[in-house]
Amino acid sequence: MTDLPTITAFSWVPDFARGQVRDMVVRWAFAELGLDYRTELLNAASPRGEGYIEWHPFDQVPAYRDEQVEMFESGAILIHLGEMHGHILPHEPAARAKALSWTAAILNTVEPALRPVSLLPLFHGDKPWTQEAVAALRPLAEQRLKRVSAALGEDAWIAGDFSIADILLVFVLRSFGGDMLAAHSNLVAYRDRGIARPAFEQALARHLDDFTTEPA
Amino acid sequence: MTDLPTITAFSWVPDFARGQVRDMVVRWAFAELGLDYRTELLNAASPRGEGYIEWHPFDQVPAYRDEQVEMFESGAILIHLGEMHGHILPHEPAARAKALSWTAAILNTVEPALRPVSLLPLFHGDKPWTQEAVAALRPLAEQRLKRVSAALGEDAWIAGDFSIADILLVFVLRSFGGDMLAAHSNLVAYRDRGIARPAFEQALARHLDDFTTEPA
Repeated sequence: MTDLPTITAFSWVPDFARGQVRDMVVRWAFAELGLDYRTELLNAASPRGEGYIEWHPFDQVPAYRDEQVEMFESGAILIHLGEMHGHILPHEPAARAKALSWTAAILNTVEPALRPVSLLPLFHGDKPWTQEAVAALRPLAEQRLKRVSAALGEDAWIAGDFSIADILLVFVLRSFGGDMLAAHSNLVAYRDRGIARPAFEQALARHLDDFTTEPA
Repeated sequence: MTDLPTITAFSWVPDFARGQVRDMVVRWAFAELGLDYRTELLNAASPRGEGYIEWHPFDQVPAYRDEQVEMFESGAILIHLGEMHGHILPHEPAARAKALSWTAAILNTVEPALRPVSLLPLFHGDKPWTQEAVAALRPLAEQRLKRVSAALGEDAWIAGDFSIADILLVFVLRSFGGDMLAAHSNLVAYRDRGIARPAFEQALARHLDDFTTEPA
């Protein structure tokens, strides 16, 4: 009998964060692959201690462990799962290169432009400078979405067949796209096509089911 | 005879950006591997057109091409070079998983926290809100640096042997660490150890040599 791979997730987060925590990304990948996993639940409101920091240096979720490796950071865990089990990361070199290019672009070019536009109002909405800062940062976020929209065109998925790049991009558009998404009907349809996948729905249900405690 | 791999870079950027453009990351990887490459030079001040957008959807540098694949985004190109040529990305599964975890963490967790603290004063320093916005964003950047410093400890490199994660982390600390780095002597020494490598120096020299035109 083999041990299931383990990921960490939270047993409690504030309501606004439910459905948005990054273990969603890894749960979705497992569901696409039809693979089971075990969760080790942490309370977002209590310190995790040194043992956890050794596993995840930034004290976040998800961390990942299987019989061979320990990992952290959802983008890296997706690459690992894709390589282990295929199907969400192509083997053919040109297709794989395209999926990896998009994966890195979403992590480093798309999400960092969108995140402050979405999160500054949430975390600093009461400050006098927020509106102007967001107005200054928004053009880059809009330009990045425009580029993604043009690259997607009428395709179903961003890098050929459905891949880890789609898992990340749908997550980012859903969490940080906000009202900017409405300017691109193909991106709205793309996000909706992603979250309509049975694997996404399974992942979300299990993610929500794991919120079982009060803040500690 | 085999064609050399090609990367794109700029033939002109403003002075403050020289040494900081992301083709540096890929040039450094080539130099570590002892491999030659060809550059296709673009002018940062002129539009690149549809042909280039098909290669690099975000109209940035570097894009990459070899006999098998086309790619964009420096983080992805590093993974590809590491997989093709070894040496900067371990083959052994646990070591590889650690290097990939750090690679993704630098792209998605470290750099996005540091970048606005470093770039808002540069691009919006004349605005009345900049100082307060930077003050609000700085604690997260400092916390991320503290975690990186703790994880590095007295080690020479961030994920075991020198790897693509170090190429990215040294680049990020050097470009976006600013005065926040001074709080962590091990990170200052780490950055200096990185840029003292002959491969970094070779990459920087060739990067600077390619600035051969005026703004078009």
